[in-house]
Amino acid sequence: MHILGIDPGLLITGFGVVDMDGPHLRYVASGTIKTAHLDKKDLPGRLKVLFDGVREVVQRYQPEVASVEIVFVNVNPQATLLLGQARGACITALVSSDLAVAEYTALQMKKAVAGYGKAGKAEVQQMVMRLLKLPSLPGKDAADALGLAITHAHVGTAMARLALASEAGGKMDGNYRAGRSR
Amino acid sequence: MHILGIDPGLLITGFGVVDMDGPHLRYVASGTIKTAHLDKKDLPGRLKVLFDGVREVVQRYQPEVASVEIVFVNVNPQATLLLGQARGACITALVSSDLAVAEYTALQMKKAVAGYGKAGKAEVQQMVMRLLKLPSLPGKDAADALGLAITHAHVGTAMARLALASEAGGKMDGNYRAGRSR
Repeated sequence: MHILGIDPGLLITGFGVVDMDGPHLRYVASGTIKTAHLDKKDLPGRLKVLFDGVREVVQRYQPEVASVEIVFVNVNPQATLLLGQARGACITALVSSDLAVAEYTALQMKKAVAGYGKAGKAEVQQMVMRLLKLPSLPGKDAADALGLAITHAHVGTAMARLALASEAGGKMDGNYRAGRSR
Repeated sequence: MHILGIDPGLLITGFGVVDMDGPHLRYVASGTIKTAHLDKKDLPGRLKVLFDGVREVVQRYQPEVASVEIVFVNVNPQATLLLGQARGACITALVSSDLAVAEYTALQMKKAVAGYGKAGKAEVQQMVMRLLKLPSLPGKDAADALGLAITHAHVGTAMARLALASEAGGKMDGNYRAGRSR
């Protein structure tokens, strides 16, 4: 199953595709979609580049699910508004491709990838390189996006285990009650 | 020429279509796209409803240009972030339909429609009803969207006049210089 991670940003949006085959994670692709070459005042044009870029990634790598970073309010409210619009364009590209979208905070991603929520950018890059057996460090934005895909893979695996446990638990519970009724 | 006005909002996005035939404005359609019936936590699902709704309006009324309200930073930063994402989804729907997008502030819209920037919602509704000869008051969100379409029509007309004046001005200037050189 291909999982697409997206780290949304108006200037740079990172993407990373990871294949989950049972417990095994395999690197598929990663990169960035940039709008720095465009007129800063042309917000519609920049949002179109993000939308088209994310759609292209979806068409090329055919993910089954997307994992997008939950962005937070910035100290600069104007930056918050711009980031919100960029994230809106990215998510729209995903849902208009009929992809399910999971959302994780940077804290959740860092915990899943590096083991603790206060991990720095460099640690995320190191851990993503190690987990996916990459030959070199991924870029910061791509690493975050790959980290989001890994986070969803971990959560997916954990949820599957929980589902199995609850099935097993259901049977045990039944047996237990049956035992009591004897 | 059909002009589509969009007043973006996460709960309610207003739309209004106006036809500009020379100096004449004619009402075509207006309404709202709502997400209130959806799970508040399902942001991707809500953005998809906005995106699909705006795309549907574009396909039905075939506007040549869109006019979208520039949103501002809210007192509540979280609300700002949500509004930004909603606006991002709306603009993405427009640019992915290959529509040119003009942007105006609420102040500019109120000046264009009611004559002064501090006009209230009710005054905008009244003026839109009068300018477009509507049989009754449009809803607030639809009125704002129609107001944005009217604003773009006015600006377009003014720009066309300026272009004519500068052509005429160029000729007059030539004549004038020719006169002086005699």
